Amino acid sequence: MKIRVYYEDTDEQGIVYYANYLKFCERARSEIFFSNNINIFTKESYFVVKNINANYIDSAKLGNILEVKTELKELNRVSLVLIHKIFRDDKEIFNCEVTLVSMSNNKISKIKADFKELMLQFVMK
Amino acid sequence: MKIRVYYEDTDEQGIVYYANYLKFCERARSEIFFSNNINIFTKESYFVVKNINANYIDSAKLGNILEVKTELKELNRVSLVLIHKIFRDDKEIFNCEVTLVSMSNNKISKIKADFKELMLQFVMK
Amino acid sequence: MKIRVYYEDTDEQGIVYYANYLKFCERARSEIFFSNNINIFTKESYFVVKNINANYIDSAKLGNILEVKTELKELNRVSLVLIHKIFRDDKEIFNCEVTLVSMSNNKISKIKADFKELMLQFVMK
Amino acid sequence: MKIRVYYEDTDEQGIVYYANYLKFCERARSEIFFSNNINIFTKESYFVVKNINANYIDSAKLGNILEVKTELKELNRVSLVLIHKIFRDDKEIFNCEVTLVSMSNNKISKIKADFKELMLQFVMK
Repeated sequence: MKIRVYYEDTDEQGIVYYANYLKFCERARSEIFFSNNINIFTKESYFVVKNINANYIDSAKLGNILEVKTELKELNRVSLVLIHKIFRDDKEIFNCEVTLVSMSNNKISKIKADFKELMLQFVMK
Repeated sequence: MKIRVYYEDTDEQGIVYYANYLKFCERARSEIFFSNNINIFTKESYFVVKNINANYIDSAKLGNILEVKTELKELNRVSLVLIHKIFRDDKEIFNCEVTLVSMSNNKISKIKADFKELMLQFVMK
Repeated sequence: MKIRVYYEDTDEQGIVYYANYLKFCERARSEIFFSNNINIFTKESYFVVKNINANYIDSAKLGNILEVKTELKELNRVSLVLIHKIFRDDKEIFNCEVTLVSMSNNKISKIKADFKELMLQFVMK
Repeated sequence: MKIRVYYEDTDEQGIVYYANYLKFCERARSEIFFSNNINIFTKESYFVVKNINANYIDSAKLGNILEVKTELKELNRVSLVLIHKIFRDDKEIFNCEVTLVSMSNNKISKIKADFKELMLQFVMK
Protein backbone atom coordinates (compact mmCIF):
# COMPACT_ATOMS: atom_id res chain seq x y z
CA MET A 1 0.00 0.00 0.00
CA LYS A 2 1.40 3.36 -1.09
CA ILE A 3 0.84 6.48 1.00
CA ARG A 4 1.70 10.06 0.09
CA VAL A 5 2.83 12.36 2.91
CA TYR A 6 0.66 15.50 2.99
CA TYR A 7 0.82 18.65 5.11
CA GLU A 8 -1.56 17.19 7.68
CA ASP A 9 0.95 14.40 8.38
CA THR A 10 3.94 16.63 9.09
CA ASP A 11 4.73 18.74 12.13
CA GLU A 12 6.80 21.73 13.09
CA GLN A 13 10.03 19.72 12.74
CA GLY A 14 9.29 19.30 9.02
CA ILE A 15 8.86 15.56 9.36
CA VAL A 16 5.97 13.17 9.84
CA TYR A 17 4.52 13.44 13.38
CA TYR A 18 5.42 10.29 15.31
CA ALA A 19 1.86 9.12 15.98
CA ASN A 20 0.95 9.40 12.31
CA TYR A 21 3.02 6.36 11.33
CA LEU A 22 0.49 4.38 13.34
CA LYS A 23 -2.27 5.93 11.24
CA PHE A 24 -0.50 4.75 8.10
CA CYS A 25 -0.28 1.23 9.53
CA GLU A 26 -3.96 1.25 10.43
CA ARG A 27 -4.83 2.39 6.89
CA ALA A 28 -2.88 -0.60 5.54
CA ARG A 29 -4.64 -2.98 7.94
CA SER A 30 -8.09 -1.63 7.10
CA GLU A 31 -7.39 -1.65 3.39
CA ILE A 32 -6.73 -5.38 3.51
CA PHE A 33 -10.29 -5.89 4.73
CA PHE A 34 -11.96 -3.26 2.57
CA SER A 35 -10.36 -4.61 -0.58
CA ASN A 36 -11.37 -8.17 0.29
CA ASN A 37 -14.92 -7.17 1.20
CA ILE A 38 -14.53 -8.62 4.66
CA ASN A 39 -16.50 -6.52 7.11
CA ILE A 40 -14.72 -6.64 10.43
CA PHE A 41 -16.20 -3.39 11.62
CA THR A 42 -19.49 -4.55 13.09
CA LYS A 43 -20.48 -4.64 16.74
CA GLU A 44 -20.49 -8.43 16.47
CA SER A 45 -16.96 -8.62 15.17
CA TYR A 46 -14.14 -6.15 15.47
CA PHE A 47 -10.60 -5.85 16.72
CA VAL A 48 -8.97 -3.73 19.39
CA VAL A 49 -5.29 -2.91 19.68
CA LYS A 50 -3.74 -4.37 22.81
CA ASN A 51 -0.05 -3.57 22.35
CA ILE A 52 2.22 -1.68 20.00
CA ASN A 53 5.98 -1.86 19.83
CA ALA A 54 7.29 0.66 17.34
CA ASN A 55 10.79 1.51 16.12
CA TYR A 56 11.58 4.80 14.42
CA ILE A 57 14.57 4.34 12.12
CA ASP A 58 14.45 7.37 9.84
CA SER A 59 11.98 10.17 9.14
CA ALA A 60 9.68 10.99 6.24
CA LYS A 61 9.00 14.40 4.70
CA LEU A 62 6.23 16.25 2.88
CA GLY A 63 5.65 14.77 -0.57
CA ASN A 64 7.42 11.48 0.13
CA ILE A 65 5.72 8.36 -1.09
CA LEU A 66 5.82 5.65 1.54
CA GLU A 67 5.04 1.99 1.25
CA VAL A 68 3.50 0.01 4.09
CA LYS A 69 4.10 -3.73 4.10
CA THR A 70 2.14 -5.98 6.43
CA GLU A 71 3.09 -9.44 7.66
CA LEU A 72 1.43 -11.89 10.00
CA LYS A 73 3.70 -12.95 12.86
CA GLU A 74 1.26 -14.87 15.04
CA LEU A 75 -2.32 -16.07 14.68
CA ASN A 76 -3.97 -17.40 17.80
CA ARG A 77 -7.50 -18.25 18.83
CA VAL A 78 -8.52 -14.74 19.94
CA SER A 79 -5.53 -12.59 19.01
CA LEU A 80 -2.98 -11.99 16.30
CA VAL A 81 0.29 -10.14 15.91
CA LEU A 82 0.99 -8.13 12.78
CA ILE A 83 4.23 -6.53 11.69
CA HIS A 84 4.02 -3.35 9.66
CA LYS A 85 7.10 -1.98 7.95
CA ILE A 86 7.19 1.42 6.29
CA PHE A 87 9.61 2.02 3.43
CA ARG A 88 10.72 5.17 1.62
CA ASP A 89 12.47 4.35 -1.65
CA ASP A 90 13.04 0.78 -0.44
CA LYS A 91 14.68 1.98 2.76
CA GLU A 92 12.93 0.83 5.92
CA ILE A 93 12.21 3.89 8.05
CA PHE A 94 9.75 2.48 10.58
CA ASN A 95 8.45 -0.83 11.85
CA CYS A 96 5.99 -1.91 14.47
CA GLU A 97 4.47 -4.98 15.95
CA VAL A 98 0.77 -4.69 16.72
CA THR A 99 -1.18 -7.13 18.87
CA LEU A 100 -4.87 -7.18 18.06
CA VAL A 101 -7.61 -8.90 20.02
CA SER A 102 -10.84 -10.12 18.45
CA MET A 103 -13.98 -8.72 20.10
CA SER A 104 -17.71 -9.25 19.86
CA ASN A 105 -20.13 -7.00 21.77
CA ASN A 106 -17.44 -5.81 24.18
CA LYS A 107 -16.20 -9.34 24.90
CA ILE A 108 -13.11 -11.15 23.73
CA SER A 109 -14.16 -13.65 21.08
CA LYS A 110 -12.75 -16.26 18.71
CA ILE A 111 -11.32 -15.00 15.44
CA LYS A 112 -13.61 -15.90 12.55
CA ALA A 113 -12.60 -18.48 9.94
CA ASP A 114 -12.80 -16.21 6.87
CA PHE A 115 -10.64 -13.62 8.60
CA LYS A 116 -8.08 -16.27 9.55
CA GLU A 117 -7.91 -17.52 5.99
CA LEU A 118 -7.30 -14.02 4.68
CA MET A 119 -4.62 -13.37 7.29
CA LEU A 120 -2.72 -16.50 6.36
CA GLN A 121 -1.87 -14.85 3.05
CA PHE A 122 0.28 -12.43 5.05
CA VAL A 123 2.43 -15.01 6.79
CA MET A 124 6.07 -13.90 7.04
CA LYS A 125 8.38 -15.54 4.56
CA MET B 1 -11.35 28.49 26.55
CA LYS B 2 -7.55 28.36 26.41
CA ILE B 3 -5.77 25.99 24.04
CA ARG B 4 -2.06 25.25 23.87
CA VAL B 5 -0.56 24.57 20.43
CA TYR B 6 1.27 21.21 20.44
CA TYR B 7 3.36 19.45 17.79
CA GLU B 8 0.33 17.56 16.50
CA ASP B 9 -1.34 20.87 15.59
CA THR B 10 1.50 22.24 13.50
CA ASP B 11 2.60 21.31 10.01
CA GLU B 12 5.68 21.48 7.85
CA GLN B 13 5.32 25.27 7.52
CA GLY B 14 5.90 25.60 11.27
CA ILE B 15 2.40 26.92 11.85
CA VAL B 16 -0.94 25.45 12.85
CA TYR B 17 -2.43 23.36 10.02
CA TYR B 18 -5.43 25.21 8.59
CA ALA B 19 -8.04 22.57 9.37
CA ASN B 20 -6.94 22.41 13.00
CA TYR B 21 -8.42 25.82 13.84
CA LEU B 22 -11.77 24.16 13.21
CA LYS B 23 -10.83 21.49 15.74
CA PHE B 24 -10.13 24.20 18.29
CA CYS B 25 -13.55 25.74 17.63
CA GLU B 26 -15.26 22.39 18.00
CA ARG B 27 -13.44 21.84 21.32
CA ALA B 28 -14.82 25.18 22.54
CA ARG B 29 -18.34 24.29 21.37
CA SER B 30 -18.25 20.86 23.00
CA GLU B 31 -16.75 22.24 26.21
CA ILE B 32 -19.78 24.52 26.63
CA PHE B 33 -21.99 21.45 26.77
CA PHE B 34 -19.68 19.22 28.79
CA SER B 35 -19.17 21.87 31.45
CA ASN B 36 -22.93 22.49 31.68
CA ASN B 37 -23.75 18.79 31.82
CA ILE B 38 -25.97 19.09 28.78
CA ASN B 39 -25.72 15.90 26.76
CA ILE B 40 -26.23 16.81 23.13
CA PHE B 41 -24.41 13.78 21.88
CA THR B 42 -27.17 11.20 21.84
CA LYS B 43 -28.85 9.64 18.80
CA GLU B 44 -32.02 11.46 19.83
CA SER B 45 -30.38 14.85 19.90
CA TYR B 46 -27.25 16.07 18.20
CA PHE B 47 -26.02 18.73 15.81
CA VAL B 48 -24.44 18.57 12.40
CA VAL B 49 -22.37 21.29 10.75
CA LYS B 50 -24.06 22.67 7.65
CA ASN B 51 -21.78 25.56 6.70
CA ILE B 52 -18.49 27.10 7.73
CA ASN B 53 -17.13 30.46 6.69
CA ALA B 54 -13.64 30.92 8.05
CA ASN B 55 -11.14 33.76 7.84
CA TYR B 56 -7.44 33.25 8.47
CA ILE B 57 -5.92 36.51 9.71
CA ASP B 58 -2.61 35.46 11.23
CA SER B 59 -0.95 32.17 12.12
CA ALA B 60 -0.18 30.40 15.38
CA LYS B 61 3.00 28.54 16.32
CA LEU B 62 4.13 25.69 18.54
CA GLY B 63 3.77 26.57 22.23
CA ASN B 64 1.38 29.48 21.65
CA ILE B 65 -1.57 29.72 23.98
CA LEU B 66 -4.72 30.54 22.07
CA GLU B 67 -8.08 31.65 23.35
CA VAL B 68 -11.31 30.66 21.64
CA LYS B 69 -14.31 32.93 22.19
CA THR B 70 -17.77 31.82 21.14
CA GLU B 71 -20.78 34.01 20.40
CA LEU B 72 -24.30 33.25 19.28
CA LYS B 73 -25.25 35.10 16.12
CA GLU B 74 -28.59 33.48 15.29
CA LEU B 75 -30.90 31.04 17.04
CA ASN B 76 -33.71 29.60 14.97
CA ARG B 77 -36.16 26.75 15.36
CA VAL B 78 -33.91 24.01 13.95
CA SER B 79 -30.58 25.75 13.40
CA LEU B 80 -28.17 28.22 14.93
CA VAL B 81 -25.18 30.25 13.85
CA LEU B 82 -22.14 30.55 16.10
CA ILE B 83 -19.15 32.80 15.72
CA HIS B 84 -15.83 31.55 17.02
CA LYS B 85 -12.88 33.91 17.29
CA ILE B 86 -9.39 32.74 18.10
CA PHE B 87 -6.98 35.12 19.82
CA ARG B 88 -3.25 34.97 20.48
CA ASP B 89 -2.20 37.52 23.09
CA ASP B 90 -5.44 39.45 22.52
CA LYS B 91 -4.81 39.64 18.78
CA GLU B 92 -7.55 38.02 16.68
CA ILE B 93 -5.89 35.52 14.34
CA PHE B 94 -8.89 33.55 13.10
CA ASN B 95 -12.66 33.73 13.03
CA CYS B 96 -15.41 31.60 11.64
CA GLU B 97 -19.13 31.43 11.40
CA VAL B 98 -20.58 27.95 11.84
CA THR B 99 -24.14 26.97 10.99
CA LEU B 100 -25.36 23.99 12.97
CA VAL B 101 -28.55 22.04 12.41
CA SER B 102 -30.35 20.15 15.16
CA MET B 103 -30.91 16.47 14.40
CA SER B 104 -32.73 13.56 15.95
CA ASN B 105 -32.36 10.03 14.55
CA ASN B 106 -31.06 11.30 11.20
CA LYS B 107 -33.87 13.85 10.83
CA ILE B 108 -33.85 17.60 11.24
CA SER B 109 -35.54 18.41 14.54
CA LYS B 110 -36.46 21.31 16.79
CA ILE B 111 -33.75 22.64 19.08
CA LYS B 112 -34.49 21.68 22.70
CA ALA B 113 -35.43 24.28 25.29
CA ASP B 114 -32.56 23.68 27.72
CA PHE B 115 -30.07 23.98 24.90
CA LYS B 116 -31.66 27.23 23.71
CA GLU B 117 -31.49 28.68 27.18
CA LEU B 118 -27.81 27.85 27.49
CA MET B 119 -27.06 29.30 24.07
CA LEU B 120 -28.71 32.61 24.93
CA GLN B 121 -25.85 33.23 27.37
CA PHE B 122 -23.60 33.52 24.32
CA VAL B 123 -25.54 36.23 22.53
CA MET B 124 -23.25 38.76 20.85
CA LYS B 125 -22.92 42.03 22.69
CA MET C 1 -8.32 12.11 -6.71
CA LYS C 2 -9.77 9.14 -4.83
CA ILE C 3 -9.65 8.99 -1.06
CA ARG C 4 -10.61 6.08 1.17
CA VAL C 5 -12.20 6.89 4.54
CA TYR C 6 -10.25 5.21 7.36
CA TYR C 7 -10.86 5.00 11.12
CA GLU C 8 -8.72 8.07 11.75
CA ASP C 9 -11.12 10.15 9.62
CA THR C 10 -14.30 9.22 11.46
CA ASP C 11 -15.55 10.36 14.84
CA GLU C 12 -17.91 9.20 17.55
CA GLN C 13 -20.95 9.93 15.35
CA GLY C 14 -19.74 7.25 12.91
CA ILE C 15 -19.14 9.78 10.16
CA VAL C 16 -16.18 11.77 8.88
CA TYR C 17 -15.20 14.53 11.36
CA TYR C 18 -16.12 17.89 9.86
CA ALA C 19 -12.61 19.35 9.74
CA ASN C 20 -11.29 16.29 7.91
CA TYR C 21 -13.04 17.19 4.65
CA LEU C 22 -10.65 20.14 4.56
CA LYS C 23 -7.76 17.70 4.90
CA PHE C 24 -9.08 15.78 1.89
CA CYS C 25 -9.24 19.03 -0.12
CA GLU C 26 -5.72 19.95 0.87
CA ARG C 27 -4.51 16.48 -0.19
CA ALA C 28 -6.09 17.07 -3.60
CA ARG C 29 -4.48 20.53 -3.90
CA SER C 30 -1.06 19.26 -2.89
CA GLU C 31 -1.31 16.25 -5.15
CA ILE C 32 -1.73 18.55 -8.16
CA PHE C 33 1.67 20.05 -7.43
CA PHE C 34 3.43 16.85 -6.39
CA SER C 35 2.29 15.02 -9.50
CA ASN C 36 3.41 17.92 -11.72
CA ASN C 37 6.76 18.28 -9.98
CA ILE C 38 6.04 21.88 -9.14
CA ASN C 39 7.58 22.69 -5.81
CA ILE C 40 5.41 25.32 -4.16
CA PHE C 41 6.55 24.44 -0.70
CA THR C 42 9.70 26.51 -0.38
CA LYS C 43 10.25 29.56 1.81
CA GLU C 44 10.50 31.61 -1.38
CA SER C 45 7.17 30.46 -2.71
CA TYR C 46 4.21 29.04 -0.89
CA PHE C 47 0.52 29.64 -0.33
CA VAL C 48 -1.53 30.41 2.74
CA VAL C 49 -5.26 29.90 3.14
CA LYS C 50 -7.12 33.19 3.64
CA ASN C 51 -10.74 32.12 3.56
CA ILE C 52 -12.82 28.97 3.42
CA ASN C 53 -16.50 28.71 2.74
CA ALA C 54 -17.66 25.13 3.13
CA ASN C 55 -21.02 23.42 2.69
CA TYR C 56 -21.80 20.06 4.22
CA ILE C 57 -24.46 18.31 2.15
CA ASP C 58 -24.26 14.71 3.26
CA SER C 59 -21.89 12.63 5.36
CA ALA C 60 -19.31 9.95 4.58
CA LYS C 61 -18.64 6.74 6.49
CA LEU C 62 -15.82 4.34 7.23
CA GLY C 63 -14.72 2.50 4.09
CA ASN C 64 -16.37 4.93 1.66
CA ILE C 65 -14.33 5.90 -1.35
CA LEU C 66 -14.60 9.62 -1.99
CA GLU C 67 -13.57 11.61 -5.00
CA VAL C 68 -12.26 15.15 -4.73
CA LYS C 69 -12.63 17.36 -7.80
CA THR C 70 -10.85 20.68 -8.00
CA GLU C 71 -11.73 23.66 -10.16
CA LEU C 72 -10.22 27.11 -10.55
CA LYS C 73 -12.76 29.87 -9.97
CA GLU C 74 -10.48 32.94 -9.96
CA LEU C 75 -6.83 33.56 -10.70
CA ASN C 76 -5.50 36.98 -9.72
CA ARG C 77 -2.06 38.53 -9.37
CA VAL C 78 -1.42 37.39 -5.79
CA SER C 79 -4.38 35.18 -4.98
CA LEU C 80 -6.62 32.49 -6.39
CA VAL C 81 -9.92 30.86 -5.53
CA LEU C 82 -10.35 27.11 -5.85
CA ILE C 83 -13.51 25.08 -5.59
CA HIS C 84 -13.26 21.56 -4.22
CA LYS C 85 -16.18 19.20 -4.48
CA ILE C 86 -16.28 15.85 -2.75
CA PHE C 87 -18.37 13.05 -4.22
CA ARG C 88 -19.43 9.66 -2.91
CA ASP C 89 -20.74 7.43 -5.70
CA ASP C 90 -21.23 10.49 -7.92
CA LYS C 91 -23.33 12.22 -5.27
CA GLU C 92 -21.89 15.55 -4.12
CA ILE C 93 -21.60 15.47 -0.33
CA PHE C 94 -19.38 18.50 0.33
CA ASN C 95 -18.06 21.55 -1.43
CA CYS C 96 -15.88 24.45 -0.47
CA GLU C 97 -14.36 27.56 -1.88
CA VAL C 98 -10.80 28.23 -0.76
CA THR C 99 -9.00 31.53 -1.20
CA LEU C 100 -5.23 31.14 -1.30
CA VAL C 101 -2.66 33.91 -1.19
CA SER C 102 0.80 33.59 -2.71
CA MET C 103 3.63 34.27 -0.25
CA SER C 104 7.38 34.63 -0.36
CA ASN C 105 9.42 34.94 2.84
CA ASN C 106 6.39 36.00 4.88
CA LYS C 107 5.29 38.62 2.34
CA ILE C 108 2.47 38.58 -0.14
CA SER C 109 3.97 38.01 -3.58
CA LYS C 110 3.03 37.57 -7.23
CA ILE C 111 1.93 34.11 -8.32
CA LYS C 112 4.60 32.47 -10.47
CA ALA C 113 4.07 31.86 -14.17
CA ASP C 114 4.51 28.07 -14.13
CA PHE C 115 2.02 27.78 -11.33
CA LYS C 116 -0.49 29.97 -13.20
CA GLU C 117 -0.14 27.84 -16.29
CA LEU C 118 -0.80 24.66 -14.33
CA MET C 119 -3.81 26.20 -12.59
CA LEU C 120 -5.40 27.21 -15.88
CA GLN C 121 -5.94 23.50 -16.58
CA PHE C 122 -8.43 23.54 -13.73
CA VAL C 123 -10.64 26.33 -15.04
CA MET C 124 -14.33 25.64 -14.43
CA LYS C 125 -16.23 24.48 -17.45
CA MET D 1 -1.95 17.04 33.04
CA LYS D 2 -5.68 16.80 32.40
CA ILE D 3 -7.01 16.21 28.90
CA ARG D 4 -10.62 16.30 27.75
CA VAL D 5 -11.66 13.86 25.00
CA TYR D 6 -13.28 15.74 22.10
CA TYR D 7 -14.93 14.54 18.89
CA GLU D 8 -11.65 14.82 16.98
CA ASP D 9 -10.10 12.22 19.30
CA THR D 10 -12.75 9.56 18.84
CA ASP D 11 -13.37 7.25 15.91
CA GLU D 12 -16.18 5.22 14.41
CA GLN D 13 -16.02 2.71 17.29
CA GLY D 14 -17.06 5.49 19.69
CA ILE D 15 -13.74 5.40 21.50
CA VAL D 16 -10.45 7.28 21.31
CA TYR D 17 -8.51 6.34 18.14
CA TYR D 18 -5.48 4.26 19.14
CA ALA D 19 -2.82 6.62 17.81
CA ASN D 20 -4.33 9.55 19.68
CA TYR D 21 -3.17 8.29 23.07
CA LEU D 22 0.33 8.97 21.78
CA LYS D 23 -0.75 12.54 21.01
CA PHE D 24 -1.91 12.94 24.59
CA CYS D 25 1.47 11.67 25.85
CA GLU D 26 3.31 14.08 23.59
CA ARG D 27 1.18 16.96 24.88
CA ALA D 28 2.19 16.03 28.43
CA ARG D 29 5.87 15.83 27.45
CA SER D 30 5.79 19.17 25.66
CA GLU D 31 3.86 20.84 28.45
CA ILE D 32 6.66 19.99 30.88
CA PHE D 33 9.03 22.07 28.77
CA PHE D 34 6.63 24.87 27.90
CA SER D 35 5.68 25.38 31.54
CA ASN D 36 9.33 25.42 32.60
CA ASN D 37 10.36 27.76 29.82
CA ILE D 38 12.91 25.29 28.55
CA ASN D 39 13.12 25.54 24.80
CA ILE D 40 13.98 22.12 23.46
CA PHE D 41 12.51 22.82 20.09
CA THR D 42 15.42 24.49 18.32
CA LYS D 43 17.53 23.09 15.50
CA GLU D 44 20.45 23.01 17.94
CA SER D 45 18.60 20.95 20.49
CA TYR D 46 15.62 18.68 20.07
CA PHE D 47 14.51 15.13 20.67
CA VAL D 48 13.35 12.39 18.36
CA VAL D 49 11.32 9.34 19.32
CA LYS D 50 13.26 6.11 18.79
CA ASN D 51 10.94 3.51 20.27
CA ILE D 52 7.47 3.23 21.73
CA ASN D 53 6.02 0.32 23.62
CA ALA D 54 2.37 0.92 24.38
CA ASN D 55 -0.25 -1.10 26.23
CA TYR D 56 -3.97 -0.51 25.77
CA ILE D 57 -5.82 -1.55 28.92
CA ASP D 58 -9.21 0.11 28.57
CA SER D 59 -10.77 2.68 26.27
CA ALA D 60 -11.81 6.31 26.67
CA LYS D 61 -14.95 7.99 25.36
CA LEU D 62 -16.16 11.40 24.24
CA GLY D 63 -16.29 13.84 27.15
CA ASN D 64 -14.02 11.79 29.43
CA ILE D 65 -11.38 13.69 31.33
CA LEU D 66 -8.09 11.85 31.26
CA GLU D 67 -4.99 12.42 33.28
CA VAL D 68 -1.51 11.83 31.88
CA LYS D 69 1.26 11.09 34.38
CA THR D 70 4.88 11.11 33.29
CA GLU D 71 7.82 9.39 34.96
CA LEU D 72 11.49 9.15 34.11
CA LYS D 73 12.68 5.55 33.85
CA GLU D 74 16.20 6.06 32.47
CA LEU D 75 18.43 9.06 31.82
CA ASN D 76 21.55 8.40 29.80
CA ARG D 77 24.13 10.56 28.04
CA VAL D 78 22.22 10.92 24.74
CA SER D 79 18.88 9.26 25.42
CA LEU D 80 16.16 8.88 28.00
CA VAL D 81 13.19 6.63 28.63
CA LEU D 82 9.90 8.09 29.83
CA ILE D 83 6.83 6.26 31.05
CA HIS D 84 3.45 7.86 30.41
CA LYS D 85 0.36 6.50 32.11
CA ILE D 86 -3.13 7.64 31.23
CA PHE D 87 -5.85 7.45 33.85
CA ARG D 88 -9.62 7.85 33.69
CA ASP D 89 -11.13 8.35 37.16
CA ASP D 90 -7.96 6.94 38.72
CA LYS D 91 -8.17 3.79 36.61
CA GLU D 92 -5.12 3.24 34.40
CA ILE D 93 -6.32 2.74 30.83
CA PHE D 94 -3.07 3.11 28.88
CA ASN D 95 0.64 3.17 29.44
CA CYS D 96 3.66 3.50 27.24
CA GLU D 97 7.41 3.62 27.41
CA VAL D 98 8.99 6.15 25.06
CA THR D 99 12.68 6.24 24.21
CA LEU D 100 13.85 9.67 23.12
CA VAL D 101 17.21 10.56 21.62
CA SER D 102 18.79 13.99 21.94
CA MET D 103 19.67 15.61 18.60
CA SER D 104 21.49 18.69 17.41
CA ASN D 105 21.50 19.65 13.72
CA ASN D 106 20.56 16.14 12.62
CA LYS D 107 23.22 14.48 14.77
CA ILE D 108 22.89 12.57 18.02
CA SER D 109 24.14 14.82 20.80
CA LYS D 110 24.61 14.95 24.57
CA ILE D 111 21.55 15.85 26.64
CA LYS D 112 21.92 19.36 28.09
CA ALA D 113 22.39 19.93 31.80
CA ASP D 114 19.29 22.10 32.39
CA PHE D 115 17.15 19.51 30.68
CA LYS D 116 18.64 16.71 32.77
CA GLU D 117 17.98 18.62 35.94
CA LEU D 118 14.34 19.17 35.01
CA MET D 119 13.91 15.51 34.09
CA LEU D 120 15.23 14.32 37.43
CA GLN D 121 12.09 15.75 39.03
CA PHE D 122 10.19 13.01 37.22
CA VAL D 123 12.16 10.05 38.57
CA MET D 124 9.93 7.07 39.35
CA LYS D 125 9.19 6.58 43.00
